[in-house]
Amino acid sequence: MIRILVTGGTFDKQYDEISARLHFTESQVPEMLRLGRCRVDVAIRTVMLVDSLEMTNADRSLIAQNCLQAPESQIVVTHGTDTMVETAKAIASCVTGKTVVLTGAMVPYAFGSSDGMFNLGSALSFAQALPPGVYVAMNGRCFSWDRVRKNRQTGVFEET
Amino acid sequence: MIRILVTGGTFDKQYDEISARLHFTESQVPEMLRLGRCRVDVAIRTVMLVDSLEMTNADRSLIAQNCLQAPESQIVVTHGTDTMVETAKAIASCVTGKTVVLTGAMVPYAFGSSDGMFNLGSALSFAQALPPGVYVAMNGRCFSWDRVRKNRQTGVFEET
Amino acid sequence: MIRILVTGGTFDKQYDEISARLHFTESQVPEMLRLGRCRVDVAIRTVMLVDSLEMTNADRSLIAQNCLQAPESQIVVTHGTDTMVETAKAIASCVTGKTVVLTGAMVPYAFGSSDGMFNLGSALSFAQALPPGVYVAMNGRCFSWDRVRKNRQTGVFEET
Amino acid sequence: MIRILVTGGTFDKQYDEISARLHFTESQVPEMLRLGRCRVDVAIRTVMLVDSLEMTNADRSLIAQNCLQAPESQIVVTHGTDTMVETAKAIASCVTGKTVVLTGAMVPYAFGSSDGMFNLGSALSFAQALPPGVYVAMNGRCFSWDRVRKNRQTGVFEET
Repeated sequence: MIRILVTGGTFDKQYDEISARLHFTESQVPEMLRLGRCRVDVAIRTVMLVDSLEMTNADRSLIAQNCLQAPESQIVVTHGTDTMVETAKAIASCVTGKTVVLTGAMVPYAFGSSDGMFNLGSALSFAQALPPGVYVAMNGRCFSWDRVRKNRQTGVFEET
Repeated sequence: MIRILVTGGTFDKQYDEISARLHFTESQVPEMLRLGRCRVDVAIRTVMLVDSLEMTNADRSLIAQNCLQAPESQIVVTHGTDTMVETAKAIASCVTGKTVVLTGAMVPYAFGSSDGMFNLGSALSFAQALPPGVYVAMNGRCFSWDRVRKNRQTGVFEET
Repeated sequence: MIRILVTGGTFDKQYDEISARLHFTESQVPEMLRLGRCRVDVAIRTVMLVDSLEMTNADRSLIAQNCLQAPESQIVVTHGTDTMVETAKAIASCVTGKTVVLTGAMVPYAFGSSDGMFNLGSALSFAQALPPGVYVAMNGRCFSWDRVRKNRQTGVFEET
Repeated sequence: MIRILVTGGTFDKQYDEISARLHFTESQVPEMLRLGRCRVDVAIRTVMLVDSLEMTNADRSLIAQNCLQAPESQIVVTHGTDTMVETAKAIASCVTGKTVVLTGAMVPYAFGSSDGMFNLGSALSFAQALPPGVYVAMNGRCFSWDRVRKNRQTGVFEET
């Protein structure tokens, strides 16, 4: 069983027809797993639905607590890309003995051209195959939490 | 660097507007990697574009030869689901010391509702994280080549 | 109120994951109208779901009867493209005083790249704006039933 | 020949991966016509790419001038929905003898779930079939410019 903790981010943004803005209503992760014909047993918990630029230290503590308290030892966290590395650090500071993989998307799933399906399949696989640790899985690659940064100019996660 | 060997299958089928049938023209894998914003270095080779029900023993030998001769030690093979397990067996009989992951899709990528993006992200990740061996990665799960079968009634890959 | 008579055709074909073939289950037209945010009052009737190459004279008579008996004077018929012109002729031979517009698609709606949404919006509009008669609306154009043929090589409807 | 005047609006908004905002780059209309297999002869001119809430009186004059000066007598204007009726009024005040149809979308085309394809097919059809006048075509319906308003609560165009 893999625990999936949903926190929002681009992954889950939808288009609001009335306001003409991107907003959150509910997580797209269950629909994405259905479309991907996912046959891994997962337990999904929506911890929050926020833009990661607006995430507070209290939010990061809550996510880390959820990792700690989950009975599963394999955890995927869906997260906005802008502060994904910070949350990974917060998790790494208090969670040991579990494989925690953070992932996200550059384009909302609700857009046909999303990279979310690719990244979700990737993150669930790294969570099963890697030894305990905290990782960031984006664009087919997987980085240890302390060796990655997001390049804000290109939008690409790079090894540090 | 990961080697991707394309062999066809549902993954790559497209709709022919004139004949109203599904057919192969060229592999969708490069486009899928672009859409997934894949940042893993890959070398793609289209070995064949066939329906796996029409694949011969000579075809399977050719795929295995491609695995043997590839300079890369991490290999993903895109393949039709119906005889994926047979090809995995053919590869396992002659390739050692490499991580070979076969994957495919239940729905063509050209259909919006494809599971192909999810499976491709998954296969590329298992190829990086698992020890040498021959595997089938479908629906978020990964099976050793000698412990899997496709359930033809449900379309789901199961452990044996 | 516009009557929509569904008869099948490429429009409504879906991909069957188990058999790996295109088949009919139920009409996609209600979903397409929902996605198009259609605010025209419509009454949908699925007369049949068949490939138009397999349509018999009895089938065409049934469609014409449905046009005759419908209380509405504006009718859209969704139809396979291969014999659309023949059915238009059958309708024209017995229906007068109504605006009947046949339309279809070159690519199934279930494929993301469908022309079906475009053609459905077009057909519903011509049905409202044109005087009584029997028409074929494809690719943004509208032809009188007796001045059109499908070019089988190019898949395009042409004036004759 | 139909003239298409592009002015922007939701229709043409795209997702910017770096800023995580919706923005304009280039019009999606040519791609939409290609996908719709449109066989109507069209001449496309991008007059501007703006959010219709930010459109000025000078912008509306420019659009009306483009309608006046176009050699074609059938014109489709793609436009944001919020002030579409105001621009229709500006056009009606100076253009006569031409069929001008304004249309738009509630959801960007770049989102898979767009109503844009449906509305574009509809607008091109009304432009061919209706007598001279200025119209708003949305959601399958067509309104005279002086008998329509957008309901901001529901996002639906209604007869007045």
